[in-house]
Amino acid sequence: MSIDENDIPALARGCAVLGTGGGGGVRTGSLAAIRAIREYGEVPLVELADLPGDALVVPLSGIGAPTVSHEMIHGEDEPKRIAEEVERIFGRPPSAIMSSEIGGANGVAPVAWAAQLGVPLLDADGMGRAFPEVQMVSMYVAGLPADLVIMSDVAGNVVTIRPIDGLWSERLARAVCVAAGSHALMADYVLTADRARGAVIEGTVTRALDVGRATEGATDPLEALRDRLGAARLITGKLTDVERRTTGGFVRGTATIEGTGDDRGRRLTLELQNENLVAIEDGRVRAMVPDLITVVDTETADAVQTESLRYGQRVTVLAWPCDALWRTPKGLETAGPRAFGYDLDYVPVEELTAHG
Amino acid sequence: MSIDENDIPALARGCAVLGTGGGGGVRTGSLAAIRAIREYGEVPLVELADLPGDALVVPLSGIGAPTVSHEMIHGEDEPKRIAEEVERIFGRPPSAIMSSEIGGANGVAPVAWAAQLGVPLLDADGMGRAFPEVQMVSMYVAGLPADLVIMSDVAGNVVTIRPIDGLWSERLARAVCVAAGSHALMADYVLTADRARGAVIEGTVTRALDVGRATEGATDPLEALRDRLGAARLITGKLTDVERRTTGGFVRGTATIEGTGDDRGRRLTLELQNENLVAIEDGRVRAMVPDLITVVDTETADAVQTESLRYGQRVTVLAWPCDALWRTPKGLETAGPRAFGYDLDYVPVEELTAHG
Repeated sequence: MSIDENDIPALARGCAVLGTGGGGGVRTGSLAAIRAIREYGEVPLVELADLPGDALVVPLSGIGAPTVSHEMIHGEDEPKRIAEEVERIFGRPPSAIMSSEIGGANGVAPVAWAAQLGVPLLDADGMGRAFPEVQMVSMYVAGLPADLVIMSDVAGNVVTIRPIDGLWSERLARAVCVAAGSHALMADYVLTADRARGAVIEGTVTRALDVGRATEGATDPLEALRDRLGAARLITGKLTDVERRTTGGFVRGTATIEGTGDDRGRRLTLELQNENLVAIEDGRVRAMVPDLITVVDTETADAVQTESLRYGQRVTVLAWPCDALWRTPKGLETAGPRAFGYDLDYVPVEELTAHG
Repeated sequence: MSIDENDIPALARGCAVLGTGGGGGVRTGSLAAIRAIREYGEVPLVELADLPGDALVVPLSGIGAPTVSHEMIHGEDEPKRIAEEVERIFGRPPSAIMSSEIGGANGVAPVAWAAQLGVPLLDADGMGRAFPEVQMVSMYVAGLPADLVIMSDVAGNVVTIRPIDGLWSERLARAVCVAAGSHALMADYVLTADRARGAVIEGTVTRALDVGRATEGATDPLEALRDRLGAARLITGKLTDVERRTTGGFVRGTATIEGTGDDRGRRLTLELQNENLVAIEDGRVRAMVPDLITVVDTETADAVQTESLRYGQRVTVLAWPCDALWRTPKGLETAGPRAFGYDLDYVPVEELTAHG
């Protein structure tokens, strides 16, 4: 299977939904993908099983505050410089590109990067959603040493980090990102296909396409999407309060939705750190990270990203289960509520919404 | 010639004088040098002419705020990790270590790093003094592309930067340094001996030893030092005001000296950014960067570093000419007063002090 330009709108829509508010710049990523496909041709989508064991898979993502990356045009030279550095280090070029993060722009833009490099895209990612920090990837949870990060910025600088662990990779990569103008392209863990097995979440590009297509031509897009995701509807209402600040390369803040229609009188607050992390109603948690919480336009069911939240928007909040990997002890330690500073024991969204 | 542990006190004293207040941690650097010599033996001091043209010279320095590095113990693993990365990139190990900055701890500590790596120390450096920023080195002024920086921190992380120019190398290295706890070991420009010719300041280790020995056994250490340096005495007095703050990896501030004895009634203010940059008396500049300005103890003639300035100290301020390289247009553009934000046209210290 290949990805052509007609697939990009659905892919973008699906990635936005899986982005849980984060991984901004989906529109910019889509334009880059379409432009690259027009110039270099369709991008083959391959599975791990298709690759030789020693083939190099390079997980790529843009790192930065969404309010910045939203405005950024990705240069063609950034993936090329990373590929050059990969070849310099490993003595052979990348065999495939993988999205580190299927949620948001980082799910779409790798199509452009793969096209520019003339390599296939792997049908997998490292999150099955979006997360704000570098070490919050399946490779880390799977216990692969976080021993190599390659970054390339729009100015043309290339930085290679050999961190001692995942937390240092986040700390150093974030510092480089901020110094580079709060946006950079990053390869985190260069993997052989053999090492990638069991350490990446497979099938997520196909999943994003599928989610994106769910609403196409639907008479009730919201219900079609909810059904395809297996999501619970937390509230339908309007945005009455949005508070955001960009600090240290992150967007942090809260958003409050007041119920309308059947939900009149209810009030849901979302805690944000690039992504939607916790949904609270009347002091009770309704869903929490690593489960997925996405704000969608009530009419079109298009995802509304953190940087696009606006007073008065008519929205619905959906929540659904994360990949099983994130519910393991190491998964929760890495990206559970406490990893984000919330003093909460993780409870799966199915249980929280069953009570509601 | 070799450097043995008996040379270290004189080397340290000389480096402190050439440090113009900066490059802190001379005592820590000396202890590290002595310990390393005891463990690994004397360190051969070589000249560029002694090395084959393709021998790799690795200029090393600690980067960070002196108030931090003062407290830091350099680990043995930091130079080893940089040497490993050099070998990984160039396919051969370093042939010699060079001090990037002869002034302060960065002039002494390379003795330890050379001993630990079992390679000679080159009798040269990249400044002939100390400067606060990464791109303020002779290699940059000589027009060598600032295309490689390797950093290694106490935690064990290694970061390789391929910057597009010297200003980016400073910006990215500084960000990594701050993220790594405001201290790291850094190789800036890995040079072949051929490329180093004309791009480094030769003879500066010998010079530092010579300056350090000038006061040994002297009846008037201050006069002996002034004479050896060819320095002007700007003022003798006591420190009445010291203002310092550590910000973004730098120490910035001012120090005021009020004259005593023959200088009673006079008052000199020093502007600091890690190093002493400008000396002002009655609104008139008496000396300015890149010329060297050092505060010394009036009695012992030992240099007083920025982080050791204390109210009431009896000090003398000396100023003398920098290496001719810094007086070229590119040298002044890189490290003249305007490079530090002072709206001053450079006037050599000889002219300024002749007027006085």
